[in-house]
Amino acid sequence: MTPIKYAIQDYYPEDLAHCFGCGRNNQLGHGFRTGWSGDETLTIYKPEPEHTAIPGFVYGGLLASLIDCHGTGSASLALHRKQGNEPEDSIEPPRFVTASLEVKYLKPTPQNVELLTIGQVEEVHSKKFNVHTEVYAHEDLVAKGLVVAAVMPEGFGSS
Amino acid sequence: MTPIKYAIQDYYPEDLAHCFGCGRNNQLGHGFRTGWSGDETLTIYKPEPEHTAIPGFVYGGLLASLIDCHGTGSASLALHRKQGNEPEDSIEPPRFVTASLEVKYLKPTPQNVELLTIGQVEEVHSKKFNVHTEVYAHEDLVAKGLVVAAVMPEGFGSS
Repeated sequence: MTPIKYAIQDYYPEDLAHCFGCGRNNQLGHGFRTGWSGDETLTIYKPEPEHTAIPGFVYGGLLASLIDCHGTGSASLALHRKQGNEPEDSIEPPRFVTASLEVKYLKPTPQNVELLTIGQVEEVHSKKFNVHTEVYAHEDLVAKGLVVAAVMPEGFGSS
Repeated sequence: MTPIKYAIQDYYPEDLAHCFGCGRNNQLGHGFRTGWSGDETLTIYKPEPEHTAIPGFVYGGLLASLIDCHGTGSASLALHRKQGNEPEDSIEPPRFVTASLEVKYLKPTPQNVELLTIGQVEEVHSKKFNVHTEVYAHEDLVAKGLVVAAVMPEGFGSS
C-alpha cells in the first residue's frame, strides 16, 4: 500500500499529540495516521507481533484502538475540510474526543497483514460526527466500527 | 485495593494464553486479570504512564481493551461457575471470543489511578453471554461497556 502522505495527526496541536493510539509525541504508542482517500478516510496499520488474541490472530482491543483513533482522526479531517482546510495546509485542525465506540468482530484477523481501515464521516451536528468504519485484512472485512466523535471541549480534562 | 487472588486468566489453556490484553504468556501485554467479587466480576488495572489520551488522562483504546478482556474473562468465569467450577479449582475454564464491544466514555479518566472494572454477566444462551461493565476511577464512573462474548468455536482461526 502507498503510505498516507498527509495525516491529520501530524498536525494536531503540539500539546494534544500524546495519544497512545495516534499521537506523534508518544514514542511508545501505535502511531496510527489517518488521511483522505477521496471522500473516505484511511488508516493503514500493521499490528506488532505481540498484538495477539491467540497465536496468529490480532487482538480485538488493538482493533478497537485502531477504530477509535481512526474515528477521531476522520472527524477532524471532515470538520477541517468543511472549514476549508486540508492537512497539507499545515493549519492546526480541530481535535475530537470519543463519546462512544462500537466494534463488531466479523472474522478472526490474521497477523502480519496491513489492515486497511476505511471511514465514512456523517455530520450529526456542528460539533458531533459519526464515523462508520470498516477494517479489511487483504480482501476480508474483519471488523466494523462506529465512533461518535465530539469536538474536544475547551479545558477538556480540567474539573 | 486487594489484588485479585484467583483470576480466570491464570487458568486459560496454555495455548490460548497469549492475548495482548490478558494472556499470561504475553510478556509485552497488559496482563489484565479478572476474578469474582461476590456475584460481580472485577478487574483492577492501573494504566501505564504511556497510556495517555492527552497528558494526564487515560487513552480510550486502553479502556476499550480493558472492557474487552474483562468481558471475555467474566463470561468465562460465569460459564465455569455454571459448570460447577471456580478458578481456584485449577480446571481449565472455557475460552470466549468477543462478538461485539460497546464503550460509552462518560468522563475523562485520570492517569495514575487504579481502575476498578466491575461486570455483571447475563446469559443470552448456553454459548453467548452479555457482560455489562462499569469502570470507576476513585468514585467516578468514567466509562460503561457492553461485551457480547461467545464460546470460542472449535478450530477458531483456521479457515
